[in-house]
Formats: sequence, C-alpha cells, structure tokens
Amino acid sequence: MDRKQVVNFGAGPAKLPQSVLVQAQKELLNYNGTGISVLEMSHRSSDFAKIINTTADALRELLHVPDNYKILFFQGGGSGQFSAVPLNLIGLKEDRCADYLVTGAWSAKAAKEAEKYGKVNVVHPKLDSYNKIPERSTWSLNPSASYVYYCCNETVHGVEFNFIPDTKGVVLVSDMSSNFLSRPVDVSKFGLIFAGAQKNVGCAGVTVVIVREDLLGRASKECPVIMDYQVQAENNSLYNTPPCFSIYIMGLVLEWIRNQGGADAMDQLNKQKADMINDIIDQSNGFYSCPVDVACRSRMNIPFRIGKKEGDENLEKSFLDGASKLGMISLKGHRSVGGIRVSLYNAVTVEDAKALVTYMEQFLRDHKK
Amino acid sequence: MDRKQVVNFGAGPAKLPQSVLVQAQKELLNYNGTGISVLEMSHRSSDFAKIINTTADALRELLHVPDNYKILFFQGGGSGQFSAVPLNLIGLKEDRCADYLVTGAWSAKAAKEAEKYGKVNVVHPKLDSYNKIPERSTWSLNPSASYVYYCCNETVHGVEFNFIPDTKGVVLVSDMSSNFLSRPVDVSKFGLIFAGAQKNVGCAGVTVVIVREDLLGRASKECPVIMDYQVQAENNSLYNTPPCFSIYIMGLVLEWIRNQGGADAMDQLNKQKADMINDIIDQSNGFYSCPVDVACRSRMNIPFRIGKKEGDENLEKSFLDGASKLGMISLKGHRSVGGIRVSLYNAVTVEDAKALVTYMEQFLRDHKK
Repeated sequence: MDRKQVVNFGAGPAKLPQSVLVQAQKELLNYNGTGISVLEMSHRSSDFAKIINTTADALRELLHVPDNYKILFFQGGGSGQFSAVPLNLIGLKEDRCADYLVTGAWSAKAAKEAEKYGKVNVVHPKLDSYNKIPERSTWSLNPSASYVYYCCNETVHGVEFNFIPDTKGVVLVSDMSSNFLSRPVDVSKFGLIFAGAQKNVGCAGVTVVIVREDLLGRASKECPVIMDYQVQAENNSLYNTPPCFSIYIMGLVLEWIRNQGGADAMDQLNKQKADMINDIIDQSNGFYSCPVDVACRSRMNIPFRIGKKEGDENLEKSFLDGASKLGMISLKGHRSVGGIRVSLYNAVTVEDAKALVTYMEQFLRDHKK
Repeated sequence: MDRKQVVNFGAGPAKLPQSVLVQAQKELLNYNGTGISVLEMSHRSSDFAKIINTTADALRELLHVPDNYKILFFQGGGSGQFSAVPLNLIGLKEDRCADYLVTGAWSAKAAKEAEKYGKVNVVHPKLDSYNKIPERSTWSLNPSASYVYYCCNETVHGVEFNFIPDTKGVVLVSDMSSNFLSRPVDVSKFGLIFAGAQKNVGCAGVTVVIVREDLLGRASKECPVIMDYQVQAENNSLYNTPPCFSIYIMGLVLEWIRNQGGADAMDQLNKQKADMINDIIDQSNGFYSCPVDVACRSRMNIPFRIGKKEGDENLEKSFLDGASKLGMISLKGHRSVGGIRVSLYNAVTVEDAKALVTYMEQFLRDHKK
C-alpha cells in the first residue's frame, strides 16, 4: 500500500510531515556526513550538541520565548510532568497547595497525581461531564496557591481553552501537550508550559518544558533527579542520556513549521481544518453531534457521535469501517467516551480534512433518515 | 564519507548493527504495509501491540526470563531507575534501608539518589579509586535490608562483575545498563534487573526493567506514577505513551542478536574482542596501562592511559587524533578520568576491534622509547 493512501487522524502519536520522514530516512545511516546514524550518536558529541541546541533555538524563535525562560527536554511524557510539576513547584509557597482546573481526563489525572505531594484545590464546582469550561465567575482561586494548573487542550473530551486564565499574579502552569505550537501563545503569561512532542511537534519519547528561571531550584527533597528542572537546566537537558532521536525528529518538524510560516500559519490552517469538520457536524441536523460547548470546542480533537446524541454504535462501526477502507485511520473515539474522534494536528493537511469531510457528507447522505 | 569508514567505539549511545539501520531505513515511511511510519503510529494500535509484545518475548527468550518475572519498558534511563528502585522497593522491609555496593561512578550516583528515600548502607570500606571490587570478606551485608544493589558494569571506570553476589536471601537488584545481553545471565538470582537500551540492545530513550512479580505493588506513596512498576505491569508498559520508536529499534536489535546465536554468541564475541585489546595493553611493557584489577576488568569498556601510568596527555591527544583520521571515533575517556576508553558493545565487530589493535600496535612502534 502506498503511504499516500493512508491518512492518520489519530490522537497521538500522530501524523508527521512527509518531508520530515523523507529526510530522516535519507540520513538514517549517515547523518550529515558523520558516517553514523543519529540513533547511535553520543549525546556528548558536538554533532548532537548542534542538534539539541538548534531544536531549542527553533522553539524559542517560533514561540518568541523570552530570555528569562529555559527550554528543557525531558522523558516520561505529560504523565511524567503530572508529578514533576508539583515536585518542583508545590513548595513555592509555604502552604504547599495548588489550584487545579479540571476540564477533562488529563487535568483530572494531573490533579490526582499532585495530591501525592501537596494540597490540591479544584477551583470550580465539579463537572458532571467534560464538555465545557466552567464560567470564570464560579472559580475560587486561592491567593496562597503555589501555582494554578490547567490543561490547555483535553485530547479525550475535545475541550480547548482559547483564553489564558487570569490568576491574579499566581504562577500559571499549562499542559499544552496536544495543542503546543498549533497556534501562537504568549509565553510570558506562564510560569511553566509543558508538552509531549507526539502530537504537533514530533514523535513519542520527548517532552518539552518551558520554565521561567526564577522557578528553578525549588524542588522538594523527594524529587527524582531526572525530574528536577534545576538539574536539567544546569546540564542543558544532558544530565543523563536524552532521547536523542526524538529530539532530532522534533528539530526537523520545527524546521518544517518554520518553512510553513510558523505558529501563525499553523493557527490559520488548524482553524480552517477544524471549521470544515465542525461545519458538516453543525449542518447535519443532529446526524453528527459534538457534545462540546461551541465556545471551547477543540481545534485539535473533535469528538462526535453519529445517528443520535448518545451515539448509534452500529452506525459508528460502519462509519469507521468505511473510513478505514478509504485509508482514513485512527478515527475511533477514546475508549472512555466512545464514538468518533478526529484529530487535526499540525501535520494533517487541509486536503486530508477535505477528504474526511467528503466521506462524512457521503455517509450522511447514505444513512440519514 | 561512507558509513563503513567510521567505527564508533563510544560508551553509549553506541554503534547499532548495520542490518538494523538498513531495515529501519527501509520501512521508515511505511511500516510493514501499514502505510505509516512507526514514528507516527498509535501506541494503542494492534500494529504497535505486536511490536512491543514481540520485543518483550524476544527478551524473555534470549535471557530465559522465568515466568514469574515481568518485562517492562520505561523512559528516563538508568538515572530514572536510580530513583525508581528505592521508590518501589525500599519499603519491602520495615527498616526502609538498602545495601549498596559502590564500585564506580554509576553505583555512587545510585546510592546518593537512594538516600532521598531511605537509609543507604555502603556495604564495604569506601574505595580510594574505582579499580577493583572489594574483597567479599570485607562486605557487611545487613539482613534487614530491603535489597542489595550493585552496578554490574561501570562504564566510566571499566569495572565489571563476573559473578553474582550472594546476598543470603535478600532481594538482589542490578544495574546492567552497560552489559545487558552481552552474555547470559541467570535472571532467577535477581529481584530486579534494569538496563538502558543504548549500549547493547538499541538506541537511547527506552529502559528495560525485569522484575519478579512478588516485588510489585510495594511503591512508596511519593512514587511518581510513571515510575511505579505495578502500574506499568498492569498496563503492559502502556500506562502512558511509551517511546515507541526506541522499542521498535530494540526489537530489531534483539532479532539481530538471535540471528547471531543469542546471548552465548555475544558472550564469545565480546570475550574475543576484549581479549584482543587487553593483550596489546598487557604486552606493551607499560606503554598502555589499564588501572583496573585483572579480575574485574570490563569486557565492555576498557579504559587505559598512554605513555605512563597517570597518562601522557600529549601522547593521548595524538593517539585520539590519529584514530579519528582512520575513522575510529569516540575513544576519549570519560571527562572525570581522562585517557582513552574503548567500548566494545555487541554491535562492535571483531573486525572493528582488530582495526583498533592494528592502530594501537603501530602507535606503540612509533612512540615507544
């Protein structure tokens, strides 16, 4: 089967740009004339130093990261940061407590993990279902909190923040794993941003942490050394052997993003793709239905049900089978919510989205009553 | 420069077999007819399930891992396990203490990290320099220790255990990061073995943990969820997104090891390569000198000095320059010890070692007084 016949709408690990894969393939046996592969390169070599520094520099440029922020690379994914954030930051103030917004599966997990290390306050009334961001008037932020935490895009439930919460001066932390670099962001509003690479900026195995310098060196004594932001900052992310190849792939993806026009171009393209899918959902007279509030519908992950609000599982299975025959894969909703989920990360093209819309239109015509 | 002209004697990330790189390159854009790359494959897909299960099965077969042991994949490298081991095992007994053998830089780091989580007892008189394993008669093992820990091969100092310490029934834990699968090992003697892949079995980004089932579920409450052995065991190493591509590469390397004849064949080849280097050192009348006790000289990493015991830095620089001109790279000793270090992991061939011996003989003839 030719690669071009397959379109990967998976929630991550997700599609990579074709040009990135072609370049990685081309130099897999002999990177840049070194005679060896990046897969076997010493992380202390000057060649790898160039790779990791170029990657960090590209991130700094693409997101206009201010000089007083460090850009670090970790292992362990977003779930690793669910621990690392409280282990490093819960002690910023003497109450050792943190405020969490819980708007989906991932922020719920993060809040639960943080309870191991301090007091966790969910700032709004608990949601019955994750389909909206609670009204800001209902939030009760604690001025003594060491930080306020939120997940900028909930991959499972498809809820995305399109505003930056005002924390009245308390350090703001965001999990941007699934919408990182899908649009511009004002880094200066944050104490810390983290993101696994495997959605919008690379493959699995590496996690970016952007952290304001004054927050370093505050880790609790039980913080594992590989999770200590200060240690990795002092060692340029080379305290121990980093995931070299994943960092290299991220570098290639960032170069591709720059060549496409940077974060602004991603913003426009991602809006265009999401609008196309949302339009067919909204114009289907309820045949397709997305449970998420329009105000916070994710541009990255659009969950929907088919046939009726709670989903007709036979129709949904038939939809997935038909998509699969057309080479459109990984459209199944997360096992905890069911239905369909379309993920539209940076490397998914407008053409890919169009092909899906065409299929959705045809499926609607074939099955509407 | 043609790849074949470069021989990588680095201490890790280290050389990979040519056939592994060729296969990874061949299927980089289209894995096994799926139409997508392993770099973009969902970790929940049936294709990836096959990759991770095949990799674990190959390890089980190659090391004859008994049925009551789990084979798990982690991120964070050996340094991550320096924390994970005490976080999971220090509470096995109520004294919350552990015995450590400290025979080099890595076991020293592991012991220091473990002090965050319990009492650490170094079982032998502190060594002035890391060039031997203290006589067993000098060890004082604590029967109340939760576990006994040692590093089976010290990469920086070149000290390797060729015996399994008798712990009188206390759980034995070993860091085998740098000699894993370089020879057979009787897994049943251990409570836990861990190893980063990037020396003998793959590329950076993934760490293998082989753990006896009765040791699961004993993690301290401050253990980060991604380091909890029980959690990863329950989830077949898929609690969170794993380093998919690194696991895939490990699978290819394990297949290569099997095709070479398995752990026994690695054993023979590694002995042969190390003997060649040790012979020229020992026959050089002190021109080359290895500080390590013959009884525990590592077959994986052979550090030596040139010209005199403490090293003639000019000669050493000249040696490295000459080697580099011949395409033999990454021979510089670790920055903490200086001199030369030859690493001879599984993928370094007998021919590679011969080429180095030939150069060492020539260099000796050119520079001996």
